[in-house]
Amino acid sequence: MNFKNFKYKILILIVATFSFVYQNGYSQEHPSLILTKEGVKKIRAQLGKVPLFDKTLAKVKEEVDAEILAGIEVPIPKDFSGGYTHERHKRNFLIIQKAGVLYQILDDEKYAVYVKDMLLAYAKMYPTLPIHPQERSYARGKLFWQCLNDSNWLVYVSQAYDCVYDYLSKNERKHLEKNLFRPFADFISLGNPQFFNRVHNHSTWGNVAVGMIALVMNDNKLLDRALNGLKTDNINPNQKDNDGGFIKKAGQKVGFLANIDEPFSPDGYYTEGPYYQRYAMYPFLVFAESLENVKPEMKIFEYKNGVLIKSINTLLNLTDTEGEFFPLNDGQKGMSYYSRELVSSVDIGYYFGGNQSELLSIAKEQGEVLLDETGLSVAMGVRDELAKPFFKKSVVYTDGADGTQGGVGIIRANGSKDELALVFKFSSQGLSHGHYDKLSFSFYEGGNEVLQDYGLARFVNIQQKGGGNYLKENTTWAKQTIAHNTIVQNETSHFGGNFEIGSLNHSNKYLFDVSNPAVQIISAKENNAYPGTELHRTMVIIKDEKFENPYLLDILKVNSAKENQYDLPYYFMGQVISTNFKYTIPTILTKLGGKNGYQHLWNEGVGKSDGENAKLTWFNNERFYTLTSFVSKDDELIFARIGANDPDFNLRRDAGFIIRKKTVKDAVYVSVIESHGNYSPVDEIATNAFSNVKNVDVVFNDANYIAIAVTRENNEKKLFVLALNDISNNSKHKIEIRDKSVEWTGAYHFNNFN
Amino acid sequence: MNFKNFKYKILILIVATFSFVYQNGYSQEHPSLILTKEGVKKIRAQLGKVPLFDKTLAKVKEEVDAEILAGIEVPIPKDFSGGYTHERHKRNFLIIQKAGVLYQILDDEKYAVYVKDMLLAYAKMYPTLPIHPQERSYARGKLFWQCLNDSNWLVYVSQAYDCVYDYLSKNERKHLEKNLFRPFADFISLGNPQFFNRVHNHSTWGNVAVGMIALVMNDNKLLDRALNGLKTDNINPNQKDNDGGFIKKAGQKVGFLANIDEPFSPDGYYTEGPYYQRYAMYPFLVFAESLENVKPEMKIFEYKNGVLIKSINTLLNLTDTEGEFFPLNDGQKGMSYYSRELVSSVDIGYYFGGNQSELLSIAKEQGEVLLDETGLSVAMGVRDELAKPFFKKSVVYTDGADGTQGGVGIIRANGSKDELALVFKFSSQGLSHGHYDKLSFSFYEGGNEVLQDYGLARFVNIQQKGGGNYLKENTTWAKQTIAHNTIVQNETSHFGGNFEIGSLNHSNKYLFDVSNPAVQIISAKENNAYPGTELHRTMVIIKDEKFENPYLLDILKVNSAKENQYDLPYYFMGQVISTNFKYTIPTILTKLGGKNGYQHLWNEGVGKSDGENAKLTWFNNERFYTLTSFVSKDDELIFARIGANDPDFNLRRDAGFIIRKKTVKDAVYVSVIESHGNYSPVDEIATNAFSNVKNVDVVFNDANYIAIAVTRENNEKKLFVLALNDISNNSKHKIEIRDKSVEWTGAYHFNNFN
Repeated sequence: MNFKNFKYKILILIVATFSFVYQNGYSQEHPSLILTKEGVKKIRAQLGKVPLFDKTLAKVKEEVDAEILAGIEVPIPKDFSGGYTHERHKRNFLIIQKAGVLYQILDDEKYAVYVKDMLLAYAKMYPTLPIHPQERSYARGKLFWQCLNDSNWLVYVSQAYDCVYDYLSKNERKHLEKNLFRPFADFISLGNPQFFNRVHNHSTWGNVAVGMIALVMNDNKLLDRALNGLKTDNINPNQKDNDGGFIKKAGQKVGFLANIDEPFSPDGYYTEGPYYQRYAMYPFLVFAESLENVKPEMKIFEYKNGVLIKSINTLLNLTDTEGEFFPLNDGQKGMSYYSRELVSSVDIGYYFGGNQSELLSIAKEQGEVLLDETGLSVAMGVRDELAKPFFKKSVVYTDGADGTQGGVGIIRANGSKDELALVFKFSSQGLSHGHYDKLSFSFYEGGNEVLQDYGLARFVNIQQKGGGNYLKENTTWAKQTIAHNTIVQNETSHFGGNFEIGSLNHSNKYLFDVSNPAVQIISAKENNAYPGTELHRTMVIIKDEKFENPYLLDILKVNSAKENQYDLPYYFMGQVISTNFKYTIPTILTKLGGKNGYQHLWNEGVGKSDGENAKLTWFNNERFYTLTSFVSKDDELIFARIGANDPDFNLRRDAGFIIRKKTVKDAVYVSVIESHGNYSPVDEIATNAFSNVKNVDVVFNDANYIAIAVTRENNEKKLFVLALNDISNNSKHKIEIRDKSVEWTGAYHFNNFN
Repeated sequence: MNFKNFKYKILILIVATFSFVYQNGYSQEHPSLILTKEGVKKIRAQLGKVPLFDKTLAKVKEEVDAEILAGIEVPIPKDFSGGYTHERHKRNFLIIQKAGVLYQILDDEKYAVYVKDMLLAYAKMYPTLPIHPQERSYARGKLFWQCLNDSNWLVYVSQAYDCVYDYLSKNERKHLEKNLFRPFADFISLGNPQFFNRVHNHSTWGNVAVGMIALVMNDNKLLDRALNGLKTDNINPNQKDNDGGFIKKAGQKVGFLANIDEPFSPDGYYTEGPYYQRYAMYPFLVFAESLENVKPEMKIFEYKNGVLIKSINTLLNLTDTEGEFFPLNDGQKGMSYYSRELVSSVDIGYYFGGNQSELLSIAKEQGEVLLDETGLSVAMGVRDELAKPFFKKSVVYTDGADGTQGGVGIIRANGSKDELALVFKFSSQGLSHGHYDKLSFSFYEGGNEVLQDYGLARFVNIQQKGGGNYLKENTTWAKQTIAHNTIVQNETSHFGGNFEIGSLNHSNKYLFDVSNPAVQIISAKENNAYPGTELHRTMVIIKDEKFENPYLLDILKVNSAKENQYDLPYYFMGQVISTNFKYTIPTILTKLGGKNGYQHLWNEGVGKSDGENAKLTWFNNERFYTLTSFVSKDDELIFARIGANDPDFNLRRDAGFIIRKKTVKDAVYVSVIESHGNYSPVDEIATNAFSNVKNVDVVFNDANYIAIAVTRENNEKKLFVLALNDISNNSKHKIEIRDKSVEWTGAYHFNNFN
């Protein structure tokens, strides 16, 4: 034992003694967290009458029964995530929670015995455990390599304890609390203030773990620690976590309530992005449910104008048509509202958020419910056919605690085929999981990516890939600006890739107007990513009946005080079908650059346009897509391939197309992106395989206005004009375009142009 | 008009006059090809009573009604496949056939009018048409760029003509036959003997086109031409088609019957492979149906021991669990038994092949039927719940007219998850669509490729990609040996990539034994691909309960008179997870070689094993796969990536792993391929992510035997021994392996080995 650990043990001892005095607040019945005595009665009365609940119950029973048969294993902690001991302890906490619930619902003692035996096994081992042997984490746990996972464990196990509380003898409870729960709660809080006293999804788990066990043990002092954090922590304001994020800003509020206050915007957008919001939703909501049951006077679901309930709807809106989350910032693709966290969210949201019948249609798709009163009410709603479709709208969500730090816009348009969805990001940094991609976007058609956001460079819980943790390519590639569909100046990332600077800044919404379903606009400005350079990007989804599907118009204005090189990549998914420009391919592949993500791109070819437009058609998932870009003859048109400098094959070999403007001060990038036609390998018939855009032209461009003409193949023209500094609905505008006067009222103008 | 065309026109004139004399064989009723007067009665009596038939009828009616509304368009031919005029004429022939059928079934004159009007429009245009302006084909058509598509047209339009024959006046028929059908049939036969007088899927279409119209016109002379080909053709025996295939061997029989005799093996395997068999099935079967209706005395379905019916089952067995054909030789991936050709095949096969109830389950999946008596009988069978599952077995199909030219083996094994399927090719060249890939294989799990066959380099009917035709990369890459999972000697393709030599040779089956479902074996030898080198490959799917899933054991023996370099590629699908060997990645990518397909491979990394085994684990479709290969320390372990020297981005950027042995005479390649574990991005839990194979060892190897020991992670060993020159069931064998005596009877031995 080293001196540091010794000090810490004494501290634990003192605090443990201290909190023991406070533990008997008032007499409390059990269960009381996610299940209540009253709720259990209701559930028992409905057994066999509510198909979705019964189905879930049967599935959970089968799973738990199999585990009971297999016997309890509580191995000495050793592995990273993906490894045996990690996965075993993870499985234990998931199963013990279910076993506790089964005991309450089915009133079958074998489940209580299983919970008790496992708790006792942990209580026997825990006091003997040193810090976890894997050393990578800034906050190492005991059961797991990081306190985060230890906290997961306690969040679930507290519920199991609550379920068998009355089944256990007083001595058994005393033993468990003394040797397992209190030291456990203290270790992840007092023992790891750098983990517990933050605003971060990690801390949310830590706070809730402590809060849940505090509620079971009826310990108000401990509950206060959970809600409001440690009073003192001595955290160095320069200390960072493993992801490069700051631990804590000086003076920042901490604890569970601060973790609602700070990362959630008033619209319920969680600043880390939907993947981590999903991860945090379980502790946020299961603790809120528990608080509501035990301390209804707190009115937790009304806290910050009911942001917790609001955030459920926000999260559901941040998905594609398959229910998969848009992978903003660090997000692993494929995570969806079918995850267990979202089952909880939907059920709790339905029950405590006014029985919103749209949630029932999501629950139907999920096909399972929580085994508590919230899940029962959802299952009954589904049974009674109360479900209404969950209709995802075009929407903008503010970012930042007070909603003033930019945001994220989603524009959706129904074409003749699947829904098209534009995801446009102009948010704040998003804490340590943020990417340097101001004004970036991704574009979906149904569940397919048309222009992708790369997501993260990590194989979560796949042990062979760096223990399932973040890979170095997450920093060197996935977070870099060039990995995104946004502008890069002089081959450097936004804010120089500096987290501190990035965290101080955000983009600003300029315009969000979807009042006309045929012309849906999102527009934002960014003036800090490259000091001295102003970026203004506007994206419009236009539904023009002369096109097979709505198309995306992308307008990016760059104004700089000095000459720069600008790169605008489009990470198109699929295979090149044709271009309207000549390009040459190299006989050897070299990297596109030396750093800031460029070292991970192979240069697969470079072209030049001999006209005003560069056109690239590609093919994916039996459909054709065309990017038509307004370019100058000096622009380099670069085909890139991800995967250079990738010694462990951690990166996907996906394609990119980069429009490079060299040595210019100001620049205008304008492109139209079409989805068109289809091809079935069974019928072998290609329909509408060609773009319908003959030309994209910038017909006006000054400090106050930009005007784009889109010419169809039949020579008919549409004009889109945007006022760049005035979005007032009442402002009257007038400009001359090629000797014609164009007049309108409001921020933009869209019409025929002949 | 040039002199050549002039001569040809005179020839047509003479022949047309000649055949006019012969046209009135005997009085014949109409319709009589796919519909008969009797059949139409039956169909009308069942309308509204047979859901699958009614559903198809409604769909076809909707489609044809929409086309009738849109009006008839018969444009002057101009485009390649994928282009407007091509696709319009293609659509016309598909629709007119349907309109004819609707006229018969629904007795609604508007369909007859539509057919008549379109026929008259073609009869007006056809006599004015020159040869098609696109010059790429060895046999240019008039409506289309190749006679092949003209023949497609006539096969379908003959049916439409048959359906309205009685509706038309005698004069109208005379006009159509004189100006459209006779010259059309003569042009694709007399006018293009190099197209018509071959054994090839092209010629099958040509023969059938002529045969179908001959049946309608009751012209026995013309029918004889279809069945037996042109008596004289003056084809130069050295002439080749666009795919590099010979037009005709000297003395070869031609015509429809020869096209059954030659390319079909007695097992119903079509030598070009399943993709082209699918393409040819429609003319084969629709003409057979028509012959059976008009000339039942021919007993066409009994021809060559009923090979046409047999071939339907063969073709259905050459699919993965999604019904997609294994892309042997030139085959476009994604083509499946959902294609219209297979709907015809299944229905005709059911009706004329003894009502095999397994076919009904395929028809159910297809969800549509032919609108004739065969389709009616299938739909009634489905309605009456007669369908039984179509169970795909492990099977070997001989290749060659008499079944002596090697073959194709499919081994299937049901594991705990999806079916595993091994496709092992030891066939003949496969005519002009053949690839140089003796003893190659591909490996599937359910509908997913684990180790892929690249298929063809072509985007069928996608105009931007070389008019939808074969791309030059089909020759330079897809057909080359290195593009396949088989051995390459000295970086040259089998037979030096020489079609003439390849066509003279085939591999030979050594052993196919699936009598023990736990040890399913296919083994074949190839002695001509590289003169002086003998190749013997054996593939075994072993079901060992100690493994999660059955695994594939791959044993390739190479014996040569001289020293060579050998490359054995494995085109694994997915992302590298881990290796047990060190490798270095280059800072620039260079091509793996200069020619024979190597010029299309980037060298992404080279490793060396420091042990006896090289292990590569990859991840795809939420599953893990591991290749464990017995290697020497001198072997180079090469990571390759397809896509070098690809100026039009015609190739997919797929991965390959090549085991290279340099400067050796004899070599033994032994590998185990496992599918194991899974990972769900929603649960983020990886199970069984590691290989269960500790070691693969060659424990005995001489001219007569090879023995492999596979050691599991827990050190338990299995031994597989194969007699290399004796497959007799009765032979007794005995060898000494590491001081232990191993004795067995029969070709192979499999047991524990400790």
